[in-house]
Amino acid sequence: MKIVILGAGPGGYVAAVRAAQLGAEVTLIERDRLGGTCLNHGCIPSKILKKSADLIYDIEGAEEFGIRADARPLCSLPGVMSRKNAIIASQQKGIQALLQHNTVNTITGHGRLVGDHRLEYADERGQVQILDWDRLILATGSRPYSTPVLPLDGRHILSSNDALDLTRIPASMIIVGGGVIGCELACIFSAFGTQITIVEGLDRLLPLPSIDRDCSRLLLREMKKRKITVLLSRTVTAVDSRTDGLAVTIGPSPAATGLKEKEKRIVQEQAEKLLVCIGRRPNSDNLGLAGLGLAMDERGWIIVDEMMRTNLPDIYAIGDVLGPARVMLAHVASMEGEIAAENCLGAGKKMSYAVIPGAVFTRPEIGTVGLSEEEAGAHYHDARAETVLFRSTGKAHILGELAGEAKIIFRAESGKILGLHIAGPNASDLIAEGALAIQMGAALNDLATTVHAHPTLAEILREAALKAMGRPLHG
Amino acid sequence: MKIVILGAGPGGYVAAVRAAQLGAEVTLIERDRLGGTCLNHGCIPSKILKKSADLIYDIEGAEEFGIRADARPLCSLPGVMSRKNAIIASQQKGIQALLQHNTVNTITGHGRLVGDHRLEYADERGQVQILDWDRLILATGSRPYSTPVLPLDGRHILSSNDALDLTRIPASMIIVGGGVIGCELACIFSAFGTQITIVEGLDRLLPLPSIDRDCSRLLLREMKKRKITVLLSRTVTAVDSRTDGLAVTIGPSPAATGLKEKEKRIVQEQAEKLLVCIGRRPNSDNLGLAGLGLAMDERGWIIVDEMMRTNLPDIYAIGDVLGPARVMLAHVASMEGEIAAENCLGAGKKMSYAVIPGAVFTRPEIGTVGLSEEEAGAHYHDARAETVLFRSTGKAHILGELAGEAKIIFRAESGKILGLHIAGPNASDLIAEGALAIQMGAALNDLATTVHAHPTLAEILREAALKAMGRPLHG
Repeated sequence: MKIVILGAGPGGYVAAVRAAQLGAEVTLIERDRLGGTCLNHGCIPSKILKKSADLIYDIEGAEEFGIRADARPLCSLPGVMSRKNAIIASQQKGIQALLQHNTVNTITGHGRLVGDHRLEYADERGQVQILDWDRLILATGSRPYSTPVLPLDGRHILSSNDALDLTRIPASMIIVGGGVIGCELACIFSAFGTQITIVEGLDRLLPLPSIDRDCSRLLLREMKKRKITVLLSRTVTAVDSRTDGLAVTIGPSPAATGLKEKEKRIVQEQAEKLLVCIGRRPNSDNLGLAGLGLAMDERGWIIVDEMMRTNLPDIYAIGDVLGPARVMLAHVASMEGEIAAENCLGAGKKMSYAVIPGAVFTRPEIGTVGLSEEEAGAHYHDARAETVLFRSTGKAHILGELAGEAKIIFRAESGKILGLHIAGPNASDLIAEGALAIQMGAALNDLATTVHAHPTLAEILREAALKAMGRPLHG
Repeated sequence: MKIVILGAGPGGYVAAVRAAQLGAEVTLIERDRLGGTCLNHGCIPSKILKKSADLIYDIEGAEEFGIRADARPLCSLPGVMSRKNAIIASQQKGIQALLQHNTVNTITGHGRLVGDHRLEYADERGQVQILDWDRLILATGSRPYSTPVLPLDGRHILSSNDALDLTRIPASMIIVGGGVIGCELACIFSAFGTQITIVEGLDRLLPLPSIDRDCSRLLLREMKKRKITVLLSRTVTAVDSRTDGLAVTIGPSPAATGLKEKEKRIVQEQAEKLLVCIGRRPNSDNLGLAGLGLAMDERGWIIVDEMMRTNLPDIYAIGDVLGPARVMLAHVASMEGEIAAENCLGAGKKMSYAVIPGAVFTRPEIGTVGLSEEEAGAHYHDARAETVLFRSTGKAHILGELAGEAKIIFRAESGKILGLHIAGPNASDLIAEGALAIQMGAALNDLATTVHAHPTLAEILREAALKAMGRPLHG
């Protein structure tokens, strides 16, 4: 069985490894670099920058912990970037070794469908090669999106890709879009010393159905403490380049309701850089898909069923190229990749999106899984929520990280856990226990009867369950 | 129903709260301070010191992350201790508020049994008061233990209590005992700048059945990198006080086998301080227990059944005073406290020790739950183990914390998870997912089908499960 995979992001290379493990003859074609957006322009580099940002916060606050570091820490952005590039390079080597170990044939080139079970690509010498396949997996991902009002130029008006390659810390930056990427980069560059303003069109930060409103509220409060300006229900209507930077016109968002008079005013802000984080678009063009009749929605996101099959026989698609309806996260792409690979070989597995943990690497971090309080209320008549503050745990005091809370969503009648939404220290790791709980159909009592080590942050999950059962200990 | 609880450590105060929630009239008698060993001399203060120690490590390594903090960080031990004391005081206030909120009557005094369902204590003015009770819960805890060879003096020969109250950093310290407390304090004071030697009688660090040998091995390696000297299978045979410090004689341990000639030699080491971490003894004396015929073992640990009942009617016991056979950990005491309180009111619940997570706050941290590889092999013919290195996860590279591994123990036939042993960054929080998995009877496939957020350290659990299923992705 010959399987060809287009795109070597986390979805694509995981699919390749899994298919090879199952005995297929696998070819992986990537036009850019191994690891895709996640490794080269996304999760990994942004978290590398976050680690350096966290260090700055920690050093700035060291005196409180009895540690004297006698200078304000200075961020050397070239130093951060060279560490970032070294890690990316080593991770790329790791993927390469993994693919070789699993005898995946890896090709650099731009693959394009040219007929039934046939694909062409230009090889390294520019020669067009033809490849036949039995099954094809499209894992071509997405790229940053912008609008005519915000024309990305890579110098003043930046995409998130550009921001992750900066070598000089901007004095000021307006971030358009208070979603995950915008908020993460806001916290990072704020720590580096950049004066940040976030402009978000909707009425909260992280305006995603999967993220509980209380997490948004808590993040907003913490950002304000760090002097990050957040303008909600506002939009950028014009950008003018001047010799001394950008003049950015900001007005009420078309989606806004209930703005105060002051907030409705059109204002002009100066900034050295504008960072555009308003969304992404699919890499589904220039692949020959439309000509073959592959079903996509009006924006070009590929449509698949729960077995990751497109409308065309033997063609599967996974990852970001499926668009926001399928959750654009690296770990979702990997899981889809495993399932698509197995289905190429006849497994008939279905992808479930019911239990997808999300991690937002702001400060504090946010980890969510399952239904938000709003979603749960819309689905179940007996949906309930309880919240426990991190300050009720000893460990938060030990770490000096008091800001944060964990909200558990559950059904009153059965105690079944529906969702967990954590804003606080290590939330990105803590959410794993919540994901396993929901995946296994756990009830509150399962968390409550599980001993949690003391003193750890994870105790907050048990405390939340106890509170939900009407018998709080510390919460 | 009148319930009296002796001892306001985590077991005692949790029992008090739980009993009060269930409607009992509860009196809690504590002769020292609220919070017991855990809050005053154990988990909490040691982790507060660890947080400062971690900060030193982080600042020392900051350059690698592109952050210049232009001096070697200095630890102000008085600063660390004053933060520690402030947190302890605030946590004590928290416990006090919790007890008041639950209308628990809290008394400072030394309670002593004086007959059937009767107890006396001296009140604050020294007046003897008599108290009748329907149910009694003994939660009097333990205290550091020493031997005539190592006479604790609080100045040169220290208990762990003393070490947590030091206000000057010793130049050098020999730690007798490489168990949990010894290893934690070794990592802390090493970061503070103390030259550390650990002398452990058995052949590995952390020589507990519940801790897998590989965790011990990994910790030993990391300690050596940090210039901590570890002498295994060795014992301190004499200590002489001199004007310039202590002269400590170290020889082969009676338990040692297979020592090399060089290791059998008796050597003398100089040190400013000796820290004795060789065990603890029960606070079961001076309570009038022996006179009433309460069953204890030959060392004075109280004997209870799985419902936390002693041999005497209506008397329960929980926590450290039960000794090492019952796992001397704060979170075990709390769970025992909840169960004892419920059983006082007729619940008939049993305490299970099958799924007790353990967290060791060394650097790297260690988190364990369930059976070790050795224990599993002794119980099940089809027990298997697989190990994944943290360096196979992207997050470990991001954090610059590559040392570590996660070992999963499972049954080959059913895939049932038996144990999880993690040495690595955030292991103390990561182990919570493992505890829930084992508590719920999870199989490898449950972990493997649970999506884990990327990039997080928790991904290592899924990777370990995949590897155990013969289909590793990165591990």
